[in-house]
Amino acid sequence: MTIYDVSEKAGVSIATVSRVLNGSDNVSAQTRQRVLAVIEACDYTPNAFARGLGLNTMNTVGILCADSTDLYVANAVYNIERELHENNYNCLLCCTGYNVEDKQKYLNLLVNKKVDSVILLGSNFISDNDDENEYIRKAAGEIPVLLLNADYDYENVYCSICDDFKSTLQATNYILDTGVEDILYLYNSKSYSALRKLSGYQSALTQRGIPLRAEYMQYFPGSHSNLPAVADFLMEIDRAVEYHAVVAGDDNLAIGAMKFALKKGMSIPEDLSIIGYNNSILSTCCEPELTTVDNRLEVLCHHIVKTLVGILDNKEMPQKVIFSGELIKRGTTL
Amino acid sequence: MTIYDVSEKAGVSIATVSRVLNGSDNVSAQTRQRVLAVIEACDYTPNAFARGLGLNTMNTVGILCADSTDLYVANAVYNIERELHENNYNCLLCCTGYNVEDKQKYLNLLVNKKVDSVILLGSNFISDNDDENEYIRKAAGEIPVLLLNADYDYENVYCSICDDFKSTLQATNYILDTGVEDILYLYNSKSYSALRKLSGYQSALTQRGIPLRAEYMQYFPGSHSNLPAVADFLMEIDRAVEYHAVVAGDDNLAIGAMKFALKKGMSIPEDLSIIGYNNSILSTCCEPELTTVDNRLEVLCHHIVKTLVGILDNKEMPQKVIFSGELIKRGTTL
Repeated sequence: MTIYDVSEKAGVSIATVSRVLNGSDNVSAQTRQRVLAVIEACDYTPNAFARGLGLNTMNTVGILCADSTDLYVANAVYNIERELHENNYNCLLCCTGYNVEDKQKYLNLLVNKKVDSVILLGSNFISDNDDENEYIRKAAGEIPVLLLNADYDYENVYCSICDDFKSTLQATNYILDTGVEDILYLYNSKSYSALRKLSGYQSALTQRGIPLRAEYMQYFPGSHSNLPAVADFLMEIDRAVEYHAVVAGDDNLAIGAMKFALKKGMSIPEDLSIIGYNNSILSTCCEPELTTVDNRLEVLCHHIVKTLVGILDNKEMPQKVIFSGELIKRGTTL
Repeated sequence: MTIYDVSEKAGVSIATVSRVLNGSDNVSAQTRQRVLAVIEACDYTPNAFARGLGLNTMNTVGILCADSTDLYVANAVYNIERELHENNYNCLLCCTGYNVEDKQKYLNLLVNKKVDSVILLGSNFISDNDDENEYIRKAAGEIPVLLLNADYDYENVYCSICDDFKSTLQATNYILDTGVEDILYLYNSKSYSALRKLSGYQSALTQRGIPLRAEYMQYFPGSHSNLPAVADFLMEIDRAVEYHAVVAGDDNLAIGAMKFALKKGMSIPEDLSIIGYNNSILSTCCEPELTTVDNRLEVLCHHIVKTLVGILDNKEMPQKVIFSGELIKRGTTL
């Protein structure tokens, strides 16, 4: 006899059974009575119930992120965590780092801890090499897996996505519309999301018949809290490429490009236009303030919690939802 | 019969019993044998054991923070979380917001979830009104409570502190040494740490016989990811106070002061010197880069995990450790 049986017999979700057992106010009197009647009829005690589930703690969601100091991730953790608490869920957060082995280890750990569901923050949890996604498929066999801004088609996997392709296409077009065609694209990751952005840049050029040149797509791996290092990188490639605009995969890289322009004595946006990505706090920190893409993180987080609560309430929820980003125009573009 | 009895009979810590039961490699063969012998002698099964404890999950540490998007807090979460995992502890993170009632609620929740210990990030968890600290005293009656950068004398409460008084005193002296005496102090919190910083500013002036003037100590409450709002606040008080330096309680406020200087057409540092606090990513984001105080967050986090692991291994650990901050000199000071 498990909580699942009680849930089924009472015709309510597992979360609701748990709320009744925990004495939460968030259950109607009628539902409470129905659940308690089933529990009584089965001679079911919370202790036995907890033992059956392997864990006394209920309503717990695991959250995995690579690095909580990444501004995008920090905001995601905050938004998701607060909203889950409002829905009477607790969170087990794990910062995994970027190694696939560590991600596997932590995801297994959370599944073994019998969390109700798991949320993976950021597209770096999905690999191009599908063998490396086996740990996700395995987890989805046990509990719902929710992905923030990653795309993966599999049963019991739910994706909330910002259309990074379209956003970067629009950002690049915005610069092309000013007559500037030599645009450097700067990126620091080869995650699904990062490659979609790159692809958006490429499409914008191709649609106008501008040839793609490898030296205009510069990859500088890392998460780059070290902003001067980004400027140094641009100084190094300075002789090889001439450009009058930078579209960057995140705000940190864009700020690094601003530091590079300063070193070179270039005016922003007259000599160099710059567009970042994420609309992070960094984008209002610099002068001029940074034109950037708002990738709707709060909307995505809200949707992911809504989906999770729905699934655990046995509701039918969409497996993939795609939102559109928005270009926030500030001082670094003409 | 509880895990505490097994721990006592075997002469090892609760954490060690838990490691043995979880099959962790991190226990010597000798200790493992001793624990298993006690468990066998008592006809003790993990299920009964888990029931006795009220929870099957072991080696879990609760972390409370007000707001994980605060850069200081985000870095603390990351450092502590990674290091706890290296020591085979899992983390339950709760973002409480700033209300005392919510902090109480979440701390009670974690204690009820039978975490082994709890870490409170930031001095805003301790109130000047000691009645409001009752929830901390109550938790400390059950499990060790560790405070990051907060000072509270109580049994089973452990504090890792950066000497914010001394750091701000030094920062203020650094400006006074350049001959500038009209220094605005800007702060956004009245937490223990925030008031210690203010006090450091006041002492620096008093030690040189410079009178303290209320209008030179400006309080602009909030966490201020909205940097332009800080600049607007300074524009508002502009007619009332004339100053040639700003010492700020965090980097966000200092960047706001830089935006104010730009609006006013003042040169930094010639017309206005500025010092921030935290050495966050924002401090290298702006131009010129920000002189700021490195408050040794990584060192504090390392110490807090070391203390926690020690306590749970039944070692004698110091209840209070104080580290010194360091002034990082960059472009916003003469």
